[in-house]
Amino acid sequence: MPNYRLTLTFDGTRYHGWQRQKNAVTVQEVLERAIEKTVGEHVGVLGCGRTDAGVHAERYVANFSVDSALAPERMQAALNSRLPEDVAVTACDLASDDFHATLSARGKVYRYTIVTGEVRPVLERDFVHWCRHPLDVEAMRQAAACLVGEHDFASFVTELAPDKNTVRTIHGIDVETEGRTVGITLAGNGFLYNMVRTIVGCLIAVGRGLRKPEWLKEVLDARDRTRAAETAPARGLTLVKAIY
Amino acid sequence: MPNYRLTLTFDGTRYHGWQRQKNAVTVQEVLERAIEKTVGEHVGVLGCGRTDAGVHAERYVANFSVDSALAPERMQAALNSRLPEDVAVTACDLASDDFHATLSARGKVYRYTIVTGEVRPVLERDFVHWCRHPLDVEAMRQAAACLVGEHDFASFVTELAPDKNTVRTIHGIDVETEGRTVGITLAGNGFLYNMVRTIVGCLIAVGRGLRKPEWLKEVLDARDRTRAAETAPARGLTLVKAIY
Repeated sequence: MPNYRLTLTFDGTRYHGWQRQKNAVTVQEVLERAIEKTVGEHVGVLGCGRTDAGVHAERYVANFSVDSALAPERMQAALNSRLPEDVAVTACDLASDDFHATLSARGKVYRYTIVTGEVRPVLERDFVHWCRHPLDVEAMRQAAACLVGEHDFASFVTELAPDKNTVRTIHGIDVETEGRTVGITLAGNGFLYNMVRTIVGCLIAVGRGLRKPEWLKEVLDARDRTRAAETAPARGLTLVKAIY
Repeated sequence: MPNYRLTLTFDGTRYHGWQRQKNAVTVQEVLERAIEKTVGEHVGVLGCGRTDAGVHAERYVANFSVDSALAPERMQAALNSRLPEDVAVTACDLASDDFHATLSARGKVYRYTIVTGEVRPVLERDFVHWCRHPLDVEAMRQAAACLVGEHDFASFVTELAPDKNTVRTIHGIDVETEGRTVGITLAGNGFLYNMVRTIVGCLIAVGRGLRKPEWLKEVLDARDRTRAAETAPARGLTLVKAIY
């Protein structure tokens, strides 16, 4: 049975994230509906991870196995003709039987985009977080350095199950600036629920001068969510890619 | 009486263009409503030109005179707090009494963005035109060259009033490409109704190989709208700036 591997791009604005749930539209649901219309049966899809409501993706990876003779490029065209305008399949190929989008993922890259200044962003408003205050990018870089490597990120996760493993490895955090835009790129072997947005919330607190760069190390060491800053809004976050 | 000069950015997706009209929401109307709430009376606003429904603007210029003591930065903040999320005032200053956003304009710069390839654009979909076919950018550049300079652009205007002057000067047309995106930048002393989008429609016909580059000179010389290609869709068009 062919195992179709998809790369998806989606505008998460009107979705309650990736994962299927009751009473809310999700990306998984619209994709499974498009597959059902194409192959004539309901097929469960595996995704490279959950995403929060309002979070976007450039190269989200998913897979599904179904008894179909459709070539990958025909499957891609069929799905794209049935998906809404805010979701598209940008690549489709056949993976080996043991490819599992969730379990095979070795890492993820996320980008968080902030627009600073008195004037609201307009053209890019669904894809950025507006912060009126100027941000000290050098201080944000200094603060971020302590998070790189393998650490217990319990301070940066919400809805923690008591015995859940909160150790993850962050490969790098880059803070770049261009004009009034600040872009934060985070690469790691996996990210806990709300972890990226909580890290970004802390970096914004440092960038605004509300906290010193050294404070972030204290937050990390405390392993206590109440010590971190507020979670940054979802609209600024984009999953750049999943790594296999 | 102070003459407030505004620079506006707007996402034209849900507007029927700039100019106030019955039974349709326009940018001028939402701006005049924000001004009325700020100064307590209805004030007519002058804009740097009409824009079509769905066309966007990065730096649209407008002005209005009103008996107000508000400093420009206070006026800007007041208007921004009252404008919807798809319109913002990015700059505000006091102009001389004789400044008239329509009549003082010496030129405009527009950008038209096309995404090519089999896959629909998703994240940028409201700001680009999707063309499935590959485009020969070099042929488009060759074709565009004949339009630069002072010409009668009657072949590129719709809804022509019989005695209207259709002579305009185009300062330059640049066709740039990056990945699967083709950007066309047009600068001129003024553009007739639908002129930019009709020129772009012709350049797409050339880029697709449906017409030879030399054909565009024939269209120009014919001074006959029926000779040109279809008008390209509004969503790909952005007014970059008005020149004074």
